[in-house]
Amino acid sequence: MNIEQTRQDTPNCKDKIFLNSAGASLIPKIVVHKVNEYLIEEEKIGGYKLEELRKSEFDEFYNETAKLIHCEAHNIAFVNNATDGYIKALSSIDFKKDDTIITTDDDYASNHIHFIALQKRHQINVVRIKTFENGELDIEDFETLVKMYHPKLVSISHIPTNSGLIQNVEAIGNICEKNNIIFLLDACQSVGQIVVDVKRLKCDFLTATGRKFLRGPRGTGFLYVSDKILKEQYAPLYIDGRGATWTEIYKFEMLDSAKRFELWESPCAFKMGFKEAIKYANNIGMEHIQAYNEKIMKQLRANLSSIPNVVLFDNGLNTSNILTFRKGNVPLKRISNILDKNKVYYSVSNKEWGLIDFNKKGIEWAIRLSPHYFNTIEEMDKVSQTIENI
Amino acid sequence: MNIEQTRQDTPNCKDKIFLNSAGASLIPKIVVHKVNEYLIEEEKIGGYKLEELRKSEFDEFYNETAKLIHCEAHNIAFVNNATDGYIKALSSIDFKKDDTIITTDDDYASNHIHFIALQKRHQINVVRIKTFENGELDIEDFETLVKMYHPKLVSISHIPTNSGLIQNVEAIGNICEKNNIIFLLDACQSVGQIVVDVKRLKCDFLTATGRKFLRGPRGTGFLYVSDKILKEQYAPLYIDGRGATWTEIYKFEMLDSAKRFELWESPCAFKMGFKEAIKYANNIGMEHIQAYNEKIMKQLRANLSSIPNVVLFDNGLNTSNILTFRKGNVPLKRISNILDKNKVYYSVSNKEWGLIDFNKKGIEWAIRLSPHYFNTIEEMDKVSQTIENI
Repeated sequence: MNIEQTRQDTPNCKDKIFLNSAGASLIPKIVVHKVNEYLIEEEKIGGYKLEELRKSEFDEFYNETAKLIHCEAHNIAFVNNATDGYIKALSSIDFKKDDTIITTDDDYASNHIHFIALQKRHQINVVRIKTFENGELDIEDFETLVKMYHPKLVSISHIPTNSGLIQNVEAIGNICEKNNIIFLLDACQSVGQIVVDVKRLKCDFLTATGRKFLRGPRGTGFLYVSDKILKEQYAPLYIDGRGATWTEIYKFEMLDSAKRFELWESPCAFKMGFKEAIKYANNIGMEHIQAYNEKIMKQLRANLSSIPNVVLFDNGLNTSNILTFRKGNVPLKRISNILDKNKVYYSVSNKEWGLIDFNKKGIEWAIRLSPHYFNTIEEMDKVSQTIENI
Repeated sequence: MNIEQTRQDTPNCKDKIFLNSAGASLIPKIVVHKVNEYLIEEEKIGGYKLEELRKSEFDEFYNETAKLIHCEAHNIAFVNNATDGYIKALSSIDFKKDDTIITTDDDYASNHIHFIALQKRHQINVVRIKTFENGELDIEDFETLVKMYHPKLVSISHIPTNSGLIQNVEAIGNICEKNNIIFLLDACQSVGQIVVDVKRLKCDFLTATGRKFLRGPRGTGFLYVSDKILKEQYAPLYIDGRGATWTEIYKFEMLDSAKRFELWESPCAFKMGFKEAIKYANNIGMEHIQAYNEKIMKQLRANLSSIPNVVLFDNGLNTSNILTFRKGNVPLKRISNILDKNKVYYSVSNKEWGLIDFNKKGIEWAIRLSPHYFNTIEEMDKVSQTIENI
């Protein structure tokens, strides 16, 4: 990977240390250019005419996304963000009283909120897989739960929003496949950061967002739907005129492809930019991006670990480009001020976004750093020095 | 209303006759400017930092929208399009077997598709109000249906996607209020075209889209939620970390405002542009826009009515800026070619988008013209002449 080129492609990474790709990343200039170009044309002739004219460019969105996660174009739906895709996937399942969803302590807060809402509405069970002291999932416990509950759905966040964990989703996927259970993978922090191969992960649904490690525009995302799910006629409960045709007063016909999970209307200019962002990642190659990401994170973790009083809140054996930490009793305000003054872009993880994990750790907040492949080793050293000096 | 100024604000309306505002309209240059300005800043510092900095400008979105439809800012949620808002409203209702939705023959196809999906999933009834020969709703029949079925929901499309009808939704709203029934108004073709006052219409939910008569960016919309609905704790089934806070393992707390119907992520740059579009309409004044729209449509309807062989597919006593027609046996391809050659921007209404209405009329398609307040009387005459010459 040519880091010089990467940084030239993102001129705005140079006057700061941008470490919030897990929130919303910096967008390559080629993506911004594409959005602007499309908007200018839209202004000229209106949104409908332009969409017609650019049909083949929109087709490219599906091809590039399929290439990214190793599936076919017909398995991809454009959605407005990962949660939007997640909701559409959930809504395709007809939950009844006493149905069970198996999930983890570390799944995304919004997913947990959905499960609670489903508990209230449909009286389902929500069961969480046991976690070892080191943060890893207890796969034997998962197998026991599967036998005990025959769950209707297993939902896992591939890379949780804090604590660095990469979940062992391959093991989960294998067990789901063997037991014919729907496996929904929330990959909003993994796609674009590491290699994600749906064939290997054996998920039935996968949700991803544009703005994070994929470096696309805000308000974009995609949903992967497996052939099995498509063949079994799953569709979002509130399918619309995009995914289905109204054929008789009480009848509609669905599309064969994952587009049945889309809505008629989409933010076309951003979809075009999102395509460009995915193409950009594909051109560099996800294996190169992952290798580079591992390199800079190894450095950052080694640096911070060696600073007295710095506590890394890492979970699990395999860690990601999300790092949460605190330094002794330094209050949030002080650490924020110093990072701001040093032009470090970071985010603050609050308890409400990882309730169970934060309760285990007995903390209310942590500073989150999430470097990406436009960052440099020098930046890792510089930010570590800044933190050491606090 | 100063038509010269309006046309200057939309330079791209001058080299064509743009008559597809019911599809996706032409966007005022000030809206495009706002989107670009925001995107440039986002490119510089990333999406999260910018959203923080612009908080007060986002607040303006809610104020301008409230002003537009005569409610309070806390009644407004940003959504990605009208259907997105419609789905969120529908999903807030816990439909059980034998519950009834009352709707009309002329409701939007996607809404009918949702109802069919709900029939399949929850075994609800879908009942349609009788329509008189002239296309108007039979309000007495509606009252009878209300007594007979005690519906859980009444859903009406204010201005259907074809056939020019403006539904008598005030009468519907009064009866819903009297009987304490939830009234969901799909206003995606009326908001921005005519004065819409939720206090007068007495709806509980109202859905609107950005790209049509409001002249905003694609991928934007809003949902109005009444105080009654908010107080009764309705929330979208799949509420997320925006609308609720995860407080205990099996508990969340909802926002008091309609923002509980939003998702965490939104296309911020487009939301900013949408705000600008709504402000633009508010500054002109919806009563002036409506009066001008009525004037040009009166001319267009009079012109086309006087052409032999032209059939206007108008329904109802009060007609809108949506006009669908055919001319004798002229095939679609021919009429399309001639309109294209004369730089008339129009759309084709297909049966699948208005199945019941098109079946009544025995047609498969119609040409749809939807002028808006940047069009001129001269353009109405010119397009009529073009159609006469076919």
